[in-house]
Amino acid sequence: MRATTEYLTFNVPARMDFVHITPEVERIVRKSGVSEGLGLVNAMHITASVFINDDEPGLHQDYKKWLEELAPQDPSRYLHNRTGEDNGDAHHKRQIMGREVTVAITGGKLDLGTWERIFYGEFDGRRSKRVLVKVIGE
Amino acid sequence: MRATTEYLTFNVPARMDFVHITPEVERIVRKSGVSEGLGLVNAMHITASVFINDDEPGLHQDYKKWLEELAPQDPSRYLHNRTGEDNGDAHHKRQIMGREVTVAITGGKLDLGTWERIFYGEFDGRRSKRVLVKVIGE
Amino acid sequence: MRATTEYLTFNVPARMDFVHITPEVERIVRKSGVSEGLGLVNAMHITASVFINDDEPGLHQDYKKWLEELAPQDPSRYLHNRTGEDNGDAHHKRQIMGREVTVAITGGKLDLGTWERIFYGEFDGRRSKRVLVKVIGE
Repeated sequence: MRATTEYLTFNVPARMDFVHITPEVERIVRKSGVSEGLGLVNAMHITASVFINDDEPGLHQDYKKWLEELAPQDPSRYLHNRTGEDNGDAHHKRQIMGREVTVAITGGKLDLGTWERIFYGEFDGRRSKRVLVKVIGE
Repeated sequence: MRATTEYLTFNVPARMDFVHITPEVERIVRKSGVSEGLGLVNAMHITASVFINDDEPGLHQDYKKWLEELAPQDPSRYLHNRTGEDNGDAHHKRQIMGREVTVAITGGKLDLGTWERIFYGEFDGRRSKRVLVKVIGE
Repeated sequence: MRATTEYLTFNVPARMDFVHITPEVERIVRKSGVSEGLGLVNAMHITASVFINDDEPGLHQDYKKWLEELAPQDPSRYLHNRTGEDNGDAHHKRQIMGREVTVAITGGKLDLGTWERIFYGEFDGRRSKRVLVKVIGE
Protein backbone atom coordinates (compact mmCIF):
# COMPACT_ATOMS: atom_id res chain seq x y z
CA MET A 1 0.00 0.00 0.00
CA ARG A 2 1.20 3.51 -0.79
CA ALA A 3 0.41 6.53 1.39
CA THR A 4 1.16 10.22 0.87
CA THR A 5 0.35 13.06 3.27
CA GLU A 6 0.60 16.79 2.59
CA TYR A 7 -0.47 19.87 4.50
CA LEU A 8 -1.64 22.93 2.54
CA THR A 9 -1.63 26.35 4.20
CA PHE A 10 -4.12 29.15 3.45
CA ASN A 11 -4.23 32.71 4.70
CA VAL A 12 -7.54 34.08 3.45
CA PRO A 13 -7.73 37.91 3.75
CA ALA A 14 -11.54 37.92 4.24
CA ARG A 15 -13.50 36.59 7.19
CA MET A 16 -15.45 34.26 4.87
CA ASP A 17 -14.32 33.07 1.43
CA PHE A 18 -13.84 29.98 -0.72
CA VAL A 19 -10.57 28.88 -2.37
CA HIS A 20 -10.46 26.46 -5.29
CA ILE A 21 -7.96 23.70 -4.42
CA THR A 22 -8.62 20.94 -7.01
CA PRO A 23 -5.26 21.53 -8.81
CA GLU A 24 -3.34 21.15 -5.52
CA VAL A 25 -5.14 17.89 -4.72
CA GLU A 26 -4.51 16.61 -8.27
CA ARG A 27 -0.82 17.37 -7.86
CA ILE A 28 -0.65 15.35 -4.62
CA VAL A 29 -2.50 12.41 -6.22
CA ARG A 30 0.03 12.37 -9.09
CA LYS A 31 2.94 12.58 -6.66
CA SER A 32 1.55 9.69 -4.57
CA GLY A 33 1.86 7.23 -7.45
CA VAL A 34 -1.49 5.75 -6.34
CA SER A 35 -3.49 4.29 -9.23
CA GLU A 36 -6.48 2.90 -7.31
CA GLY A 37 -7.37 4.28 -3.89
CA LEU A 38 -8.99 6.96 -1.78
CA GLY A 39 -8.07 10.54 -0.95
CA LEU A 40 -9.10 12.43 2.17
CA VAL A 41 -9.09 16.24 2.12
CA ASN A 42 -10.03 17.87 5.42
CA ALA A 43 -9.83 21.22 7.15
CA MET A 44 -7.56 20.94 10.22
CA HIS A 45 -9.36 23.89 11.83
CA ILE A 46 -12.85 23.87 13.28
CA THR A 47 -13.97 27.14 11.73
CA ALA A 48 -13.24 26.00 8.16
CA SER A 49 -14.54 23.45 5.66
CA VAL A 50 -13.50 21.41 2.67
CA PHE A 51 -16.41 20.81 0.29
CA ILE A 52 -17.15 19.96 -3.33
CA ASN A 53 -19.43 22.10 -5.45
CA ASP A 54 -19.46 24.43 -8.47
CA ASP A 55 -16.67 26.88 -9.35
CA GLU A 56 -19.19 29.69 -10.01
CA PRO A 57 -18.83 33.10 -8.31
CA GLY A 58 -22.60 33.76 -8.16
CA LEU A 59 -23.17 30.52 -6.27
CA HIS A 60 -20.38 31.38 -3.84
CA GLN A 61 -22.07 34.72 -3.13
CA ASP A 62 -25.34 32.84 -2.62
CA TYR A 63 -23.66 30.50 -0.14
CA LYS A 64 -22.21 33.40 1.86
CA LYS A 65 -25.60 35.13 2.14
CA TRP A 66 -27.35 31.87 3.04
CA LEU A 67 -24.79 30.87 5.68
CA GLU A 68 -25.09 34.36 7.18
CA GLU A 69 -28.87 33.86 7.41
CA LEU A 70 -28.55 30.38 8.97
CA ALA A 71 -25.79 31.38 11.43
CA PRO A 72 -25.41 35.17 11.66
CA GLN A 73 -22.08 36.63 12.70
CA ASP A 74 -23.67 38.71 15.54
CA PRO A 75 -21.25 37.91 18.42
CA SER A 76 -23.95 38.34 21.10
CA ARG A 77 -25.80 35.24 19.84
CA TYR A 78 -23.16 32.72 20.92
CA LEU A 79 -22.16 31.55 24.40
CA HIS A 80 -18.93 30.35 22.76
CA ASN A 81 -17.87 33.99 22.45
CA ARG A 82 -17.72 34.27 26.26
CA THR A 83 -14.37 32.44 25.93
CA GLY A 84 -13.01 35.65 24.35
CA GLU A 85 -13.62 34.48 20.76
CA ASP A 86 -15.87 36.26 18.26
CA ASN A 87 -16.16 33.32 15.87
CA GLY A 88 -19.12 31.36 17.26
CA ASP A 89 -20.89 31.77 13.91
CA ALA A 90 -17.93 30.23 12.05
CA HIS A 91 -18.24 26.97 14.06
CA HIS A 92 -21.87 26.77 12.90
CA LYS A 93 -21.28 27.68 9.25
CA ARG A 94 -18.63 24.97 9.04
CA GLN A 95 -21.12 22.30 10.19
CA ILE A 96 -23.44 23.19 7.26
CA MET A 97 -20.62 23.01 4.69
CA GLY A 98 -18.83 20.01 6.26
CA ARG A 99 -15.27 19.28 7.44
CA GLU A 100 -13.97 16.99 4.72
CA VAL A 101 -14.41 15.20 1.43
CA THR A 102 -13.35 11.67 0.56
CA VAL A 103 -12.60 11.26 -3.13
CA ALA A 104 -11.95 8.25 -5.34
CA ILE A 105 -8.71 7.78 -7.26
CA THR A 106 -9.16 5.69 -10.40
CA GLY A 107 -6.53 5.06 -13.06
CA GLY A 108 -4.13 7.41 -11.26
CA LYS A 109 -6.53 10.37 -11.35
CA LEU A 110 -9.08 12.09 -9.13
CA ASP A 111 -12.38 10.47 -10.14
CA LEU A 112 -14.65 13.55 -10.06
CA GLY A 113 -17.86 14.32 -11.94
CA THR A 114 -17.79 16.91 -14.75
CA TRP A 115 -18.56 19.92 -12.53
CA GLU A 116 -17.15 18.71 -9.21
CA ARG A 117 -14.47 21.02 -7.82
CA ILE A 118 -12.85 20.92 -4.37
CA PHE A 119 -12.92 24.08 -2.23
CA TYR A 120 -11.43 25.24 1.02
CA GLY A 121 -14.14 27.15 2.87
CA GLU A 122 -12.94 29.77 5.33
CA PHE A 123 -15.32 31.21 7.96
CA ASP A 124 -12.82 32.93 10.27
CA GLY A 125 -9.96 34.03 8.06
CA ARG A 126 -7.17 36.59 8.25
CA ARG A 127 -4.71 34.03 9.66
CA SER A 128 -2.85 30.91 8.52
CA LYS A 129 -4.83 27.69 8.54
CA ARG A 130 -4.10 24.18 7.29
CA VAL A 131 -5.75 21.53 5.14
CA LEU A 132 -4.65 17.88 5.24
CA VAL A 133 -4.53 15.78 2.06
CA LYS A 134 -3.97 12.05 2.52
CA VAL A 135 -3.89 9.54 -0.34
CA ILE A 136 -3.83 5.76 0.21
CA GLY A 137 -4.00 2.92 -2.29
CA GLU A 138 -1.86 1.00 -4.75
CA MET B 1 -5.18 -4.52 -2.06
CA ARG B 2 -8.36 -4.97 -4.09
CA ALA B 3 -10.26 -2.08 -5.66
CA THR B 4 -13.59 -2.00 -7.50
CA THR B 5 -15.24 1.03 -9.09
CA GLU B 6 -18.76 1.27 -10.50
CA TYR B 7 -20.91 4.13 -11.74
CA LEU B 8 -24.67 3.98 -11.16
CA THR B 9 -26.99 6.12 -13.31
CA PHE B 10 -30.27 7.61 -12.12
CA ASN B 11 -32.93 9.53 -14.02
CA VAL B 12 -35.35 10.76 -11.38
CA PRO B 13 -38.63 12.04 -12.89
CA ALA B 14 -39.24 14.57 -10.09
CA ARG B 15 -37.21 17.69 -9.34
CA MET B 16 -36.54 16.42 -5.79
CA ASP B 17 -36.72 12.79 -4.66
CA PHE B 18 -34.80 10.07 -2.83
CA VAL B 19 -33.85 6.65 -4.25
CA HIS B 20 -32.93 3.68 -2.04
CA ILE B 21 -29.61 2.28 -3.30
CA THR B 22 -28.40 -0.04 -0.50
CA PRO B 23 -28.99 -3.21 -2.59
CA GLU B 24 -26.88 -1.82 -5.45
CA VAL B 25 -24.03 -0.96 -3.07
CA GLU B 26 -24.27 -4.41 -1.46
CA ARG B 27 -24.00 -6.02 -4.89
CA ILE B 28 -20.82 -4.04 -5.66
CA VAL B 29 -19.29 -4.97 -2.29
CA ARG B 30 -19.93 -8.67 -2.99
CA LYS B 31 -18.48 -8.38 -6.50
CA SER B 32 -15.35 -6.64 -5.15
CA GLY B 33 -14.33 -9.67 -3.09
CA VAL B 34 -13.24 -7.27 -0.34
CA SER B 35 -13.59 -8.75 3.13
CA GLU B 36 -12.17 -5.87 5.22
CA GLY B 37 -12.12 -2.34 3.82
CA LEU B 38 -13.94 0.89 3.08
CA GLY B 39 -16.55 1.88 0.52
CA LEU B 40 -17.11 5.38 -0.82
CA VAL B 41 -20.49 6.26 -2.34
CA ASN B 42 -20.74 9.79 -3.74
CA ALA B 43 -22.92 11.85 -6.04
CA MET B 44 -20.89 12.91 -9.11
CA HIS B 45 -23.20 15.91 -9.61
CA ILE B 46 -23.28 19.02 -7.45
CA THR B 47 -27.08 19.24 -7.18
CA ALA B 48 -27.41 15.75 -5.70
CA SER B 49 -26.49 13.89 -2.50
CA VAL B 50 -25.74 10.47 -1.16
CA PHE B 51 -26.83 10.10 2.47
CA ILE B 52 -27.76 7.46 5.04
CA ASN B 53 -31.03 7.60 6.93
CA ASP B 54 -34.36 5.80 7.37
CA ASP B 55 -36.31 4.12 4.55
CA GLU B 56 -39.59 5.71 5.73
CA PRO B 57 -41.81 7.68 3.30
CA GLY B 58 -43.13 10.11 5.96
CA LEU B 59 -39.58 11.12 6.88
CA HIS B 60 -38.72 11.67 3.22
CA GLN B 61 -41.74 13.99 2.89
CA ASP B 62 -40.53 15.81 6.03
CA TYR B 63 -37.05 16.22 4.51
CA LYS B 64 -38.47 17.68 1.29
CA LYS B 65 -40.58 20.24 3.16
CA TRP B 66 -37.69 21.16 5.46
CA LEU B 67 -35.16 21.53 2.65
CA GLU B 68 -37.67 23.73 0.79
CA GLU B 69 -37.91 25.93 3.91
CA LEU B 70 -34.13 26.13 4.36
CA ALA B 71 -33.38 26.73 0.65
CA PRO B 72 -36.56 27.65 -1.29
CA GLN B 73 -36.69 26.91 -4.99
CA ASP B 74 -37.65 30.55 -5.84
CA PRO B 75 -35.22 31.24 -8.74
CA SER B 76 -35.05 35.00 -7.99
CA ARG B 77 -33.22 34.29 -4.69
CA TYR B 78 -30.00 33.03 -6.29
CA LEU B 79 -27.28 34.91 -8.16
CA HIS B 80 -26.25 31.49 -9.50
CA ASN B 81 -29.36 31.53 -11.68
CA ARG B 82 -27.98 34.51 -13.64
CA THR B 83 -25.80 31.90 -15.41
CA GLY B 84 -29.02 30.66 -17.07
CA GLU B 85 -29.64 27.91 -14.49
CA ASP B 86 -32.73 27.66 -12.29
CA ASN B 87 -31.21 25.22 -9.79
CA GLY B 88 -29.52 27.52 -7.28
CA ASP B 89 -31.67 26.00 -4.53
CA ALA B 90 -30.47 22.48 -5.42
CA HIS B 91 -26.82 23.43 -4.76
CA HIS B 92 -27.88 24.56 -1.27
CA LYS B 93 -30.11 21.58 -0.46
CA ARG B 94 -27.25 19.25 -1.39
CA GLN B 95 -24.94 20.91 1.17
CA ILE B 96 -27.44 20.14 3.96
CA MET B 97 -27.78 16.47 2.96
CA GLY B 98 -24.10 15.96 2.03
CA ARG B 99 -22.23 14.69 -1.03
CA GLU B 100 -21.07 11.26 0.08
CA VAL B 101 -20.98 8.49 2.63
CA THR B 102 -18.01 6.35 3.60
CA VAL B 103 -19.06 2.92 4.82
CA ALA B 104 -17.20 0.09 6.53
CA ILE B 105 -16.92 -3.39 4.98
CA THR B 106 -16.50 -6.11 7.62
CA GLY B 107 -16.52 -9.85 6.97
CA GLY B 108 -17.34 -9.22 3.29
CA LYS B 109 -20.49 -7.20 4.05
CA LEU B 110 -21.59 -3.60 4.39
CA ASP B 111 -21.27 -2.89 8.13
CA LEU B 112 -24.43 -0.81 8.66
CA GLY B 113 -26.59 -0.28 11.75
CA THR B 114 -30.03 -1.91 11.91
CA TRP B 115 -31.91 1.00 10.31
CA GLU B 116 -29.15 2.52 8.18
CA ARG B 117 -30.06 2.66 4.47
CA ILE B 118 -28.15 4.43 1.68
CA PHE B 119 -30.05 6.93 -0.49
CA TYR B 120 -29.39 8.90 -3.62
CA GLY B 121 -30.84 12.38 -3.06
CA GLU B 122 -31.88 14.25 -6.19
CA PHE B 123 -32.54 18.02 -6.06
CA ASP B 124 -32.55 18.83 -9.79
CA GLY B 125 -33.86 15.74 -11.52
CA ARG B 126 -35.46 14.94 -14.86
CA ARG B 127 -32.08 14.02 -16.42
CA SER B 128 -29.42 11.30 -16.11
CA LYS B 129 -27.00 11.67 -13.25
CA ARG B 130 -24.28 9.42 -11.84
CA VAL B 131 -23.18 8.02 -8.49
CA LEU B 132 -19.69 6.58 -7.94
CA VAL B 133 -19.17 3.51 -5.75
CA LYS B 134 -15.56 2.65 -4.90
CA VAL B 135 -14.53 -0.24 -2.67
CA ILE B 136 -10.96 -0.77 -1.44
CA GLY B 137 -9.55 -3.34 0.97
CA GLU B 138 -8.46 -6.95 1.14
CA MET C 1 -3.13 -4.25 4.80
CA ARG C 2 -4.25 -4.18 8.43
CA ALA C 3 -7.86 -3.62 9.49
CA THR C 4 -9.38 -3.18 12.94
CA THR C 5 -13.09 -2.75 13.74
CA GLU C 6 -14.62 -1.80 17.08
CA TYR C 7 -18.11 -0.87 18.20
CA LEU C 8 -18.53 1.67 20.99
CA THR C 9 -21.79 1.85 22.94
CA PHE C 10 -23.30 5.00 24.43
CA ASN C 11 -26.35 5.48 26.62
CA VAL C 12 -26.82 9.23 26.86
CA PRO C 13 -29.26 10.21 29.65
CA ALA C 14 -30.46 13.37 27.85
CA ARG C 15 -32.46 13.56 24.63
CA MET C 16 -29.69 15.68 23.02
CA ASP C 17 -26.04 15.78 24.12
CA PHE C 18 -22.48 15.49 22.86
CA VAL C 19 -19.86 12.99 24.12
CA HIS C 20 -16.12 13.49 23.58
CA ILE C 21 -14.73 10.26 22.07
CA THR C 22 -11.25 11.21 20.78
CA PRO C 23 -9.45 9.13 23.47
CA GLU C 24 -11.45 6.02 22.51
CA VAL C 25 -10.61 6.48 18.82
CA GLU C 26 -6.93 7.04 19.68
CA ARG C 27 -6.91 3.81 21.67
CA ILE C 28 -8.31 1.87 18.68
CA VAL C 29 -5.75 3.44 16.31
CA ARG C 30 -2.92 2.35 18.65
CA LYS C 31 -4.36 -1.15 18.95
CA SER C 32 -4.67 -1.46 15.15
CA GLY C 33 -0.92 -1.15 14.63
CA VAL C 34 -1.66 0.97 11.54
CA SER C 35 1.05 3.55 10.87
CA GLU C 36 -0.32 5.08 7.64
CA GLY C 37 -4.01 4.81 6.81
CA LEU C 38 -7.54 6.05 7.28
CA GLY C 39 -10.04 5.77 10.12
CA LEU C 40 -13.82 5.87 9.74
CA VAL C 41 -15.94 6.82 12.76
CA ASN C 42 -19.71 6.70 12.18
CA ALA C 43 -22.95 6.63 14.10
CA MET C 44 -24.75 3.32 13.46
CA HIS C 45 -28.08 4.98 14.30
CA ILE C 46 -29.96 7.46 12.14
CA THR C 47 -30.80 9.88 14.95
CA ALA C 48 -27.16 10.39 15.97
CA SER C 49 -23.99 11.94 14.54
CA VAL C 50 -20.24 11.74 14.72
CA PHE C 51 -18.61 15.11 14.10
CA ILE C 52 -15.40 17.02 14.76
CA ASN C 53 -15.39 20.41 16.43
CA ASP C 54 -14.32 22.21 19.61
CA ASP C 55 -14.43 20.71 23.13
CA GLU C 56 -16.03 23.87 24.56
CA PRO C 57 -19.24 23.70 26.62
CA GLY C 58 -20.53 27.12 25.49
CA LEU C 59 -20.30 26.08 21.85
CA HIS C 60 -22.14 22.85 22.61
CA GLN C 61 -24.97 24.86 24.20
CA ASP C 62 -24.99 27.08 21.10
CA TYR C 63 -25.27 24.02 18.86
CA LYS C 64 -28.22 22.65 20.85
CA LYS C 65 -30.12 25.94 20.65
CA TRP C 66 -29.36 26.33 16.93
CA LEU C 67 -30.36 22.77 16.04
CA GLU C 68 -33.59 23.27 18.00
CA GLU C 69 -34.28 26.39 15.89
CA LEU C 70 -33.48 24.63 12.59
CA ALA C 71 -35.43 21.45 13.43
CA PRO C 72 -37.72 21.94 16.46
CA GLN C 73 -38.66 18.94 18.55
CA ASP C 74 -42.44 19.68 18.23
CA PRO C 75 -43.76 16.20 17.33
CA SER C 76 -46.71 17.60 15.32
CA ARG C 77 -44.33 18.99 12.67
CA TYR C 78 -43.20 15.61 11.32
CA LEU C 79 -45.09 13.04 9.24
CA HIS C 80 -42.43 10.57 10.42
CA ASN C 81 -44.03 10.64 13.85
CA ARG C 82 -47.20 9.04 12.42
CA THR C 83 -45.21 5.78 12.55
CA GLY C 84 -45.49 5.99 16.36
CA GLU C 85 -42.09 7.68 16.81
CA ASP C 86 -41.57 11.12 18.38
CA ASN C 87 -38.06 11.62 17.02
CA GLY C 88 -38.66 13.20 13.60
CA ASP C 89 -36.61 16.21 14.69
CA ALA C 90 -33.63 13.98 15.55
CA HIS C 91 -33.44 12.66 11.96
CA HIS C 92 -33.18 16.28 10.79
CA LYS C 93 -30.67 17.46 13.41
CA ARG C 94 -28.40 14.54 12.48
CA GLN C 95 -28.31 15.64 8.82
CA ILE C 96 -26.96 19.07 9.86
CA MET C 97 -24.24 17.59 12.07
CA GLY C 98 -23.40 14.64 9.76
CA ARG C 99 -23.20 10.85 10.16
CA GLU C 100 -19.46 10.25 10.13
CA VAL C 101 -15.91 11.53 10.02
CA THR C 102 -13.00 10.09 8.08
CA VAL C 103 -9.66 10.82 9.74
CA ALA C 104 -6.06 10.41 8.65
CA ILE C 105 -3.58 8.21 10.52
CA THR C 106 0.01 9.36 10.10
CA GLY C 107 3.05 7.97 11.92
CA GLY C 108 0.77 5.69 13.96
CA LYS C 109 -1.34 8.56 15.33
CA LEU C 110 -4.63 10.34 14.59
CA ASP C 111 -3.60 13.25 12.37
CA LEU C 112 -5.86 15.98 13.80
CA GLY C 113 -5.49 19.76 13.91
CA THR C 114 -4.70 21.45 17.25
CA TRP C 115 -8.34 21.97 18.27
CA GLU C 116 -10.00 19.09 16.43
CA ARG C 117 -11.87 16.73 18.75
CA ILE C 118 -14.21 13.88 17.80
CA PHE C 119 -17.73 13.85 19.28
CA TYR C 120 -20.67 11.50 19.36
CA GLY C 121 -23.80 13.61 18.86
CA GLU C 122 -26.98 12.19 20.35
CA PHE C 123 -30.39 13.58 19.30
CA ASP C 124 -32.69 10.86 20.67
CA GLY C 125 -30.96 9.47 23.73
CA ARG C 126 -32.01 7.56 26.83
CA ARG C 127 -31.16 4.20 25.21
CA SER C 128 -28.06 2.27 24.06
CA LYS C 129 -26.67 3.24 20.69
CA ARG C 130 -23.55 2.25 18.79
CA VAL C 131 -20.66 3.92 16.98
CA LEU C 132 -18.44 2.03 14.53
CA VAL C 133 -14.69 2.70 14.36
CA LYS C 134 -12.82 1.12 11.46
CA VAL C 135 -9.10 1.59 10.81
CA ILE C 136 -7.37 0.41 7.62
CA GLY C 137 -3.79 0.86 6.44
CA GLU C 138 -0.32 -0.50 6.95
